[in-house]
Amino acid sequence: MPTEKADTSAPRLTRKGQATRDRITSAAAALMFERGVAGTSLEDVQAAAEVSPSQIYHYFKDKRSLVKAVISVQTAQVVGAFGAVQPRFGRLDSMEALRAWRDFAVTLERSLDYAGGCPIGTLGSQLAETDPEARKDVAAGFALWEKSVVDGLQAMRDRGELRSDADPKRLGLALLTALQGGLLLTQIRRDTWALEVTLDAMLDHVESFVVPV
Amino acid sequence: MPTEKADTSAPRLTRKGQATRDRITSAAAALMFERGVAGTSLEDVQAAAEVSPSQIYHYFKDKRSLVKAVISVQTAQVVGAFGAVQPRFGRLDSMEALRAWRDFAVTLERSLDYAGGCPIGTLGSQLAETDPEARKDVAAGFALWEKSVVDGLQAMRDRGELRSDADPKRLGLALLTALQGGLLLTQIRRDTWALEVTLDAMLDHVESFVVPV
Repeated sequence: MPTEKADTSAPRLTRKGQATRDRITSAAAALMFERGVAGTSLEDVQAAAEVSPSQIYHYFKDKRSLVKAVISVQTAQVVGAFGAVQPRFGRLDSMEALRAWRDFAVTLERSLDYAGGCPIGTLGSQLAETDPEARKDVAAGFALWEKSVVDGLQAMRDRGELRSDADPKRLGLALLTALQGGLLLTQIRRDTWALEVTLDAMLDHVESFVVPV
Repeated sequence: MPTEKADTSAPRLTRKGQATRDRITSAAAALMFERGVAGTSLEDVQAAAEVSPSQIYHYFKDKRSLVKAVISVQTAQVVGAFGAVQPRFGRLDSMEALRAWRDFAVTLERSLDYAGGCPIGTLGSQLAETDPEARKDVAAGFALWEKSVVDGLQAMRDRGELRSDADPKRLGLALLTALQGGLLLTQIRRDTWALEVTLDAMLDHVESFVVPV
């Protein structure tokens, strides 16, 4: 997973320095979510974060290292909001929690006016062909997210709530992939219909493995 | 739907003129598939299509009008290859044809070394927030594609091969959305695993509506 700590090229920062670095990363994440990576210059980030050019270069040697930090921050956000263990649903290990997860995604997209798509999916799409390192960081973020969804389904199977022929790895990845497609279509169509019908279909498929009580 | 004919701003072209315009559009489509829209300049397209700057501006008044033509060409290609009526599968109106469609997508991605994602999905993702006209063109392309997939499922239901509680509109859109997610994850992961498990799950869901013979 891309974490801030893993970035050994980053200097050890004071609390104030870390706050400045975080402010720059947040501003970059917001701009890249709105305008895309290519549409966001270091100058734009500098203006939005209200720092000097020398401050940006103190924390990030170039745009790529800033993009790396943005991927890390967005991954943490997305896994925090849509991973399997978080305050909103407790664990994502029941049909009820999975349906609430689906509703949360739909509600969130509506609140964002259908804009932006998945914060890490869109980064992946933009960077996959031009920045192999960034692509790997995004893939690692997805793997972490995937694991958290698979773990919830595995817990359901371990408790005998899903039949033994249910494959949590396949079902978890399929759920996440369906969510990605749904978020992309939400962005393109400017409505949540594709997201809704696709997650509903995928959750009906998961439910077909539920052992009747 | 975005078609060349609908572009009333385009001048009436001679056969040679149309060939030059097509060469420019094809070169632009290939470059934008490889490097993204933002990473492709009119100068790049000019060099790849081996035309003069004045020739490009004769056919396209700016980059946006070139992007519009690229969306149109890519939509026609994608609907031709993955729509419901085309030489490869005949009609996409049987489980056998749907499974062949899935296999074709997987094989195609492998032959492309997992690069590029969906030619229109990636255009949509890149342009949705910055070019509302282009976003609408991509959405119209998707709607056309969706209709062709829905039509196949509707034919199955009309013949009594799917139960009456199967909703071809929902199932068709879910299939297309799952394909989009799978193509995005293929691009990010550099393998077809997400594409395979997600289409398999979605096709199993469709198959759950099949009336036993």
